[in-house]
Amino acid sequence: MYEQLFSPTVQHTLDLIGIFVFAISGALLAVRKNFDVFGIAVLAQVTALGGGLFRDLIIGAVPPAAFTDLGYFLTPLLATVLVFFLHPHVERLQTGVNVFDAAGLGLFCVAGTTKAYDYGLGLTASACLGMATAVGGGVLRDVLANEVPSLLRWDRDLYAVPAIVGATMVVLCIRFDALSSFTSGLAVVTAFVLRLLALRFHWRAPRAWNRRSTVVEGE
Amino acid sequence: MYEQLFSPTVQHTLDLIGIFVFAISGALLAVRKNFDVFGIAVLAQVTALGGGLFRDLIIGAVPPAAFTDLGYFLTPLLATVLVFFLHPHVERLQTGVNVFDAAGLGLFCVAGTTKAYDYGLGLTASACLGMATAVGGGVLRDVLANEVPSLLRWDRDLYAVPAIVGATMVVLCIRFDALSSFTSGLAVVTAFVLRLLALRFHWRAPRAWNRRSTVVEGE
Amino acid sequence: MYEQLFSPTVQHTLDLIGIFVFAISGALLAVRKNFDVFGIAVLAQVTALGGGLFRDLIIGAVPPAAFTDLGYFLTPLLATVLVFFLHPHVERLQTGVNVFDAAGLGLFCVAGTTKAYDYGLGLTASACLGMATAVGGGVLRDVLANEVPSLLRWDRDLYAVPAIVGATMVVLCIRFDALSSFTSGLAVVTAFVLRLLALRFHWRAPRAWNRRSTVVEGE
Repeated sequence: MYEQLFSPTVQHTLDLIGIFVFAISGALLAVRKNFDVFGIAVLAQVTALGGGLFRDLIIGAVPPAAFTDLGYFLTPLLATVLVFFLHPHVERLQTGVNVFDAAGLGLFCVAGTTKAYDYGLGLTASACLGMATAVGGGVLRDVLANEVPSLLRWDRDLYAVPAIVGATMVVLCIRFDALSSFTSGLAVVTAFVLRLLALRFHWRAPRAWNRRSTVVEGE
Repeated sequence: MYEQLFSPTVQHTLDLIGIFVFAISGALLAVRKNFDVFGIAVLAQVTALGGGLFRDLIIGAVPPAAFTDLGYFLTPLLATVLVFFLHPHVERLQTGVNVFDAAGLGLFCVAGTTKAYDYGLGLTASACLGMATAVGGGVLRDVLANEVPSLLRWDRDLYAVPAIVGATMVVLCIRFDALSSFTSGLAVVTAFVLRLLALRFHWRAPRAWNRRSTVVEGE
Repeated sequence: MYEQLFSPTVQHTLDLIGIFVFAISGALLAVRKNFDVFGIAVLAQVTALGGGLFRDLIIGAVPPAAFTDLGYFLTPLLATVLVFFLHPHVERLQTGVNVFDAAGLGLFCVAGTTKAYDYGLGLTASACLGMATAVGGGVLRDVLANEVPSLLRWDRDLYAVPAIVGATMVVLCIRFDALSSFTSGLAVVTAFVLRLLALRFHWRAPRAWNRRSTVVEGE
């Protein structure tokens, strides 16, 4: 039972923090898209809970955690209220939001991987689901907002790679029987720091081979 | 077993009516988007059955009702045929379609809430799923048609609120042990009437705080 | 147990071929949309595995085959690498890709239908899920790429119809107790050939009735 690497209270607090910062990013996009208050709440919920919901449906953990833990439901509403009233201030705090979002990315890719493994999936599949837990909410957010998912665009700083690295560290630890609070905390921090570095130095992934040598206008 | 508040025949008939009117709205959007006859059928099916499908996956009711009841599958095809041949007339009946769609909204939010509760979800989660049952098909319809979901846009009359009110009435009745054919019928009618009033008086939800004082152009 | 109509090795090889060609189509769209290498990989995975994933969630086969078979995961990555380095050549081979994609369509609609029936769904529902298995990945691909699904557009050659015909042949064979390697192979070939003919002669489905007599500009 790897899911309980941290004490339940610590794990739950970390989950709620991840949910909160993802919800903020969803709510901010909703404001930019000029949605009404219900649209803001829906986008906050979907961004915060969508990745975990996808993972839970795949591993057969129904009803998903998003629907059994009241805190998971209320946290995005809190983010909605904050953004609704204070969004110019939240926008100005974009750097802070980015840092928290990077923390959410690290927490979710590790928690998602261990939960998938607990439900009997193989190592590769667990790492994939860990990554999907971390990035899935953002993809759903962009699909609902009718935009090309930020995850897929070449002109955005690396987002998938930190999650892949974090999830891979977890499955390697499982493989070599070295998973502990310490090593999984290390995976969280590695993904977190990688994402911050990607933001700081604008690390980007390459596009298809011949597109590198020719200048093409953005999509 | 709250699901059978009405006699099975009555409940089934109400379900089919809701499915039919939602299918009409999907088929009409498909015609407007210039889709071919298969596109019209797909959008009719998705709009009519998508919300219930999502609910059934979440609560673990597999295979979902949409795939076990032949009437659920055939009703959207009937709507497709009608819209295919008669769509200028159906468009002209837009008021009628709106009234029926409001009825579908009321029926689905109540039926969805009671079914979720029957499957062991908490009161808040049941109300959320009831709302998702009612509005989910429309969101999927708009995503497939590559449009910003009507549900999220500020310039559309209230749609989520009537469903939230209806679902909330149901869970309050459950909480206080007062759920009956009468009270759940009342919840259906309340959601239905609220939606009609929202359409009649163009009730809208506010956008984020500072957007109210400044004139911004639509997205 | 109809799922094993062919020997397991043959069935698995056919599955991997279908997955590979669908992944190629997803990766090529990602290159056209200017996605980075991770975007290409995600779109390849989603296109190749999305239809089967949807089917498995509906029939309750969790975790889905896409997450239990390593070959299913690695094949789209192989397609990603090929497209990443060779995509102008792959584009030039568009006819070849179309032929393979037609083969994937035939294989998936038959395999999807038999698997759904094995899990206890009715004949009509099995045929629907067979079709959804075959076309679902392509729809998800287009939704993620923020385009109107090719499946729904009137200006694309018939794609759903060959899958419907193949799936219908399978359920008719089941109904009349005539399903065998031979008859299901025949269904695969029929869907395959129908799709090739649709491509060759630009067969298209009609739009709504009055749109045929008036010239309307494309969406």
